[in-house]
This record gives sequence, C-alpha cells and structure tokens, in this order.
Amino acid sequence: MARIVVKFGGTSVATVERIRQAAAHVKREVDAGNEVAVVVSAMAGKTNELVGWVEEASPFHDAREYDAIVASGEQVTAGLMAIVLSHMGIESRSFAGWQVPIKTDDAHGAARITEIDPSELDKRMKARWVPVITGFQGVAPSGRITTLGRGGSDTSAVAVAAAVRADRCDIYTDVDGVYTTDPRIVPRARRLSKVSFEEMLEMASLGAKVLMIRSVEMAMAHGVRLCVRSTFDDAGAPQLAPDGTPGVPGTLVCDEEEIMEKQIVSGITLARGEAKITLRGVTDKPGVAASVFGTLADQNIVVDMIVQNISEDGGTTDITFTVPDSEYDKAIRAIEGARGTIAFERLSGSKGGAKISVIGVGMRSHAGVASSMFKALADKGINIQLITTSEIRTSVLIDDEYAELAVRALHTYYGLDKKDS
Amino acid sequence: MARIVVKFGGTSVATVERIRQAAAHVKREVDAGNEVAVVVSAMAGKTNELVGWVEEASPFHDAREYDAIVASGEQVTAGLMAIVLSHMGIESRSFAGWQVPIKTDDAHGAARITEIDPSELDKRMKARWVPVITGFQGVAPSGRITTLGRGGSDTSAVAVAAAVRADRCDIYTDVDGVYTTDPRIVPRARRLSKVSFEEMLEMASLGAKVLMIRSVEMAMAHGVRLCVRSTFDDAGAPQLAPDGTPGVPGTLVCDEEEIMEKQIVSGITLARGEAKITLRGVTDKPGVAASVFGTLADQNIVVDMIVQNISEDGGTTDITFTVPDSEYDKAIRAIEGARGTIAFERLSGSKGGAKISVIGVGMRSHAGVASSMFKALADKGINIQLITTSEIRTSVLIDDEYAELAVRALHTYYGLDKKDS
Repeated sequence: MARIVVKFGGTSVATVERIRQAAAHVKREVDAGNEVAVVVSAMAGKTNELVGWVEEASPFHDAREYDAIVASGEQVTAGLMAIVLSHMGIESRSFAGWQVPIKTDDAHGAARITEIDPSELDKRMKARWVPVITGFQGVAPSGRITTLGRGGSDTSAVAVAAAVRADRCDIYTDVDGVYTTDPRIVPRARRLSKVSFEEMLEMASLGAKVLMIRSVEMAMAHGVRLCVRSTFDDAGAPQLAPDGTPGVPGTLVCDEEEIMEKQIVSGITLARGEAKITLRGVTDKPGVAASVFGTLADQNIVVDMIVQNISEDGGTTDITFTVPDSEYDKAIRAIEGARGTIAFERLSGSKGGAKISVIGVGMRSHAGVASSMFKALADKGINIQLITTSEIRTSVLIDDEYAELAVRALHTYYGLDKKDS
Repeated sequence: MARIVVKFGGTSVATVERIRQAAAHVKREVDAGNEVAVVVSAMAGKTNELVGWVEEASPFHDAREYDAIVASGEQVTAGLMAIVLSHMGIESRSFAGWQVPIKTDDAHGAARITEIDPSELDKRMKARWVPVITGFQGVAPSGRITTLGRGGSDTSAVAVAAAVRADRCDIYTDVDGVYTTDPRIVPRARRLSKVSFEEMLEMASLGAKVLMIRSVEMAMAHGVRLCVRSTFDDAGAPQLAPDGTPGVPGTLVCDEEEIMEKQIVSGITLARGEAKITLRGVTDKPGVAASVFGTLADQNIVVDMIVQNISEDGGTTDITFTVPDSEYDKAIRAIEGARGTIAFERLSGSKGGAKISVIGVGMRSHAGVASSMFKALADKGINIQLITTSEIRTSVLIDDEYAELAVRALHTYYGLDKKDS
C-alpha cells in the first residue's frame, strides 16, 4: 500500500473522453490498495482561451482579476474528474485551491505556495476517498484566488504530495518518460528508468520540456519521488513499480542515492536559436561584468551562457554570452546604448547557434567527460564556439547546421543508444 | 445620487466586445454620481458548454460537482467586467459568490439565498468602487459552491440590491423592456414604462420571458424596484429616470402605488402548446381532485389551468386541466393507470391549445373585463374552450389556429396599440 498523488496535464484532460482515460489510471492505483489524491490542469486550450479574453479586455489588467478568471479552468476539470471517478464507483470530490486551502503569498500570476493544510485531504484519503484538487492555484492572505504561473500544476502536485507525505507523485503527461535525448532527433534515444533530481533539473532547464523546473526543485527540497508517465498508456496493462526494473512504464525522478548504477552520462540536450554576442577589448576592471549584464537585466533580457577569458595583457579582455535569437537585436541595442558606462572596443555577434549539453551525475566522479566530448565532436569536424560547465553538465555552443549530427554522435559515443530489440 | 445594482445577462456579456458595451452603461451611471454594483451571468453559451461536459462525464452526477463546474462561468465574466471597468478608469474588483459571501442553503443546483453579508460591498460602493459579483451562485454552509438554478442571476441581483438597500436594480438584457404583448405577433405592441410587481408576476409565468418569476417575487417581497433595459441601447444617449415619462428606455417594475394612472389592462400574453385533458363522469366526492392531481404530481407533471364545474346531478362532475403538449401522453397514461383510485367514466383530450391571458391590476376595480374579453373573441368567431381567472388576470384556452388573431384583437380592443409615430 502506498500513498500517491497523481497529476494530469492539459492534454491528458482535454476532453471528457480523455478524463475517463486518465481516471482509469487512478482506478488502477485505488484497486491496488493505494491511497490516491489527484491534481488536475485545465483542459488543453482552455487556459489560452481565458488568457485571450483577458488580453482583449485590457492589455493592462489587474493580476488579481487575471487569476480569478484563469483559475476557473482547473475548477471545471476537477469537477469533471470527480464525477467520472464517482461514476466508476470511486468516492471522490473536488477541491478548489481555496477550499483545501492551498495558501500562497499574494504575488498574483506567479504566487508561491506558503502552506497546505493537509488535514481534510488526509482524512479523505484514509477513508479511501479520492480528493481531486485544482492545480496551478491557491488563495492569498487577502482571500483572493492566486495562480502559480504557467506549468504551476506540476508544482501544486508536488506541494500536495509533500503536505500529505505521499510515497510518490505521478506526473501523467503526453510522453511516457524522460529520454536520454530528443527521440525526434535520435530515434534510438532510450527512456531512462531513473534519473536524479539534479540531472532532471539540468535537463528541464536545457530543453527537455517534460517537467517544470520549479516542480523538480520543490520535489528535491522535500524529497518527493516523481514518476513521469503517459496518460495514453493502457491503464489496464500489467504495471510494475517504477523501481528501475526493465519494462516499467515511465521514469522515476529521485535522489541520487536511489540510483544504484550511475551512468556517467544520462542525457544529451539540445537548445536551438541561441545568439552569441562578443565584446572585444573590454577594459578589465572590477565591476565591468556587472555593468554588461546589469544593462541586459534592466531590459529583461535573459542571458544563458557567459564566458570571460583571463585578459592577455592585463589591460583588456573579451566577454561572450548568449541570448535567445529573438532578443539578439534588443541586446545589441542595449549594449551599444551603454557605451558610456561600458568601455569596449568592438561588438560582434551572430544568431543561430545551438547549445549541446552532456549531463550526468557520474561526471562528479569521472574525470575526462568534457575532454572526451570535445574529441567526439572534433572527430566529426564540428567546431566548438563556446564552452561552459557545471558540476554535472558540460555545454558547448556550435553552428546550428551541426546540431543533429552532434547530438547523435554524442548519444552513440556515451553508449546511450537503445539496443536492437 | 442613487444606489443601483445592475445586472447583465448572458447575451449582454457574450464576448469581450459586448462586455465593453455593457460597461459603458455602468460608466454612465457612475459618472452621474451613482453608487453602482454589478451582477453578471456567464457568457452566452458557456453554461451550456459546461453542462454538456457534466452530462457527458456521467448522467448521474453529484450536484455539488455540477455546481462547482457550472459556477466557473460567472467567475470568468466577473473578472473580465472588472478588468474592462478598471480600463475605463473605474475602480473595480470581482467577487465570487463565496467571497462576498452570498450564503445559501445546501440545495445544490437549486439553492436558495439565505443571507448576504453587505459589509464589504457597502464599503466598496461608498468608496466609489464598483464591485462585480458573480450571479447565479453562492456558498453552502459546508463551504461548497452552490448554484441557484437557471436564470438565477436575476435572483442574485435582486438579493444583492436588497442587501445593500439599493434604490433600484437594473436588469440589462437583449430586449428594451416589458411589452404589452409579444411584438413578433403584434407589431404595434407598446413598451410599458411601468408595470406592477403583480402584473409582472402574471406576465412572467404566462410566457413573457423577460424576467425570471423568482426574481420578481423576491423584488416584490423586499420592495426592490426593478428596471428592465437593453444593453444594446446606446449608453451615451440622453437618459431619463425611468419614472414613466415618455421616451424613457426600459420598463420599471414597481409597487402598484407608484403607478399613478393604472391601465385596466396592461398586457396580453400567449402560451402555446397547451394540451387539455378532460375526465368526464367523475364521482363527485371530497378528495377526488386531490387524487387526480396527486397522481400527476407524483409523475412530476406540471398542471397549468384547472377547471371543475359544479356537478349537475350532484353525483358526478367533469374535471378539465391543461399540461404542456410534451407531457400529454405521460399524463394520459398516469390517469389511466390510476383508474383504481380515481372513479371516472371517460377520459378525453387533445394537444395544441393556446392560452391567452389579459392582465392588469385595474381589473380589481373595473368590473366587466372578463365579459368584454369573451365578447371581443366572440366577435372574431373564436370559440373559448376553458376559462380561468385570478384577481388581476383572465385566461382562456382556444384553438392554436386562432392564437395570433386573438392576441391582436384583444390588444386593439383594450387600447394597447402603439399610436402612429
């Protein structure tokens, strides 16, 4: 017997028929003797419809009204899911965020959960009821409805799981797990049966859109084991516990300690549309980097990779960074406009870079991953433009033309290809 | 300066553009120095969409979930209206029923309002804010969302108006008032500038679908003056107080005392699709009528007109009543099935009757309205099948073929035709 919080995303509840399909997964868990709570997103497309009306009503709208309007989407799904579960013979009722209550701060549109009172949910689950909770929302100290920002339903699910001390949180979505890389680029990409929170964080922020980074951070902080699964898998098929044994549907995101055989490299990610900008002959004195990136931050331009070399002659240095292609022109204008405060000789750059990252907790204990990566790329004649690293990740910027070739080469090089079946 | 509650129905808020049009009426009232609160319905079509999903989820659904789902529609409109008003420079915020709170009993799907706490609304209105309140819904003692049943937004508006002691409640809809009869049948139908609560009740229950009967009852009980107006009238055009002077847009529904010159007849209503059923040779003893109509009530068949004549020979009598055409077969089966408890000789009936009613508080003081009505119909060769009366109404059942002719004849006869302009 386990206590499980299951979460269904927008595509999993897009129609009543899909809600039924999702509910079959809940029924399977209930029938297996588990205590289950459900967290739901709005039906796919509904949030966009609501946001569209808000924008049409006024481009400058009160965030509190935005929240009251947009939060209605999950209210509908929660009610429908409760009805469908009841129809299957499972005792169920819906809870809006304010009814639980899921308390948040008052940062409307991007609220943070401050406290969840687990008592009502706990009571229901012990009595074998299945509470269905609206994701993405809560209630501010003022009593008004808040939303957590896009993708916030994952965060709601993890927070509820932490509050009710669930054994795991199952995130049902339209993919069946976390892959070693994008299967559209590498058909031999493998589903990972387990991946650590740290690796998942790197993957989430680097282009694998399976889980919202914020929910992974919260899961790591509270030790909530996450299982990523597909709603569209047959709910009636034999299910194995997601403990890493072969044939298990889904990917378990958990503590590194739970993963016995650590891969040196767990995944390769690709992020396209990265523009690089280089400032040459920057006067090398304290505070110069702060000036450059402060200027960009003032314009709300998010900078990704940053590289600064030690200055050759002690007088000037070069700084290179990347921004999304769409922000390139704005960034160039911002830097040019700040010539008065930032002393540099030349500004150059180009759009259309691709960032390839190799990720794995094994890197901590295995030297030479970075150098082997550079060699693998060199063997294919791929030029590396920029390099950045973290403890469990090495990223390079290359010409976009070589992006797929690079991902496939590295995927094979690190032994991630699926065996022929 | 007046305190006004204004209510917009579904067609008045069907799109963001229409919400803007509705908001222009609010702005006009605010600019005139009035204190205003707004009550809104869901966007036209949205409630049906939500109900459709509920039915699809399960034909046997928990009414509490139905309410949680369906109530989301007004939440959206209230937020959008608050945004649009703010954009026009009017301080505004939305209130869901549970936030006011509008307390109801726990009869989910058809809840009755038990109490409205006016303090927050009152404070806002005094400070020249415009609170926008979701119609149609409240919160049960259990803390769950309730709905008042279809058309409940009118009731919400009247209840809010009573709670904040408003000078009047303006019901904005897609028609510009209450007419002497259906203008589609009689092009010369006139808009009434004033009509009494009692007349409006008779008209509402007899086919004039302008106001929900329940909201009129509540308005009468609490002395809330109602003004029926069109959202689609130009909000910027010169407005006169709806006190009965010519050219005023809308109809004021108020106490009889407020109406100086009482018309003998204020309106003619038509209800089609009435089936009549006659039981002949019914044993005339106490309790027989109760048996007949108890049998029908057990089947949830709503009976409209009932006529029982004094028995000729003291032994048997005839009972005739009408039901909607759609209930005719069911009613016949129910009576046939109760032959054991109801003693009668013959059962006959037919579908397709039309009920014509002449309504007016002036009937109280003017004798002869009924007889003049029968004469006016006889002059046109129209046969009267059934007659029922109340203090301020006389209704007849006639063959549907003559329905329009009868309405036009009576409309002219009682001097209700619009003068040529």
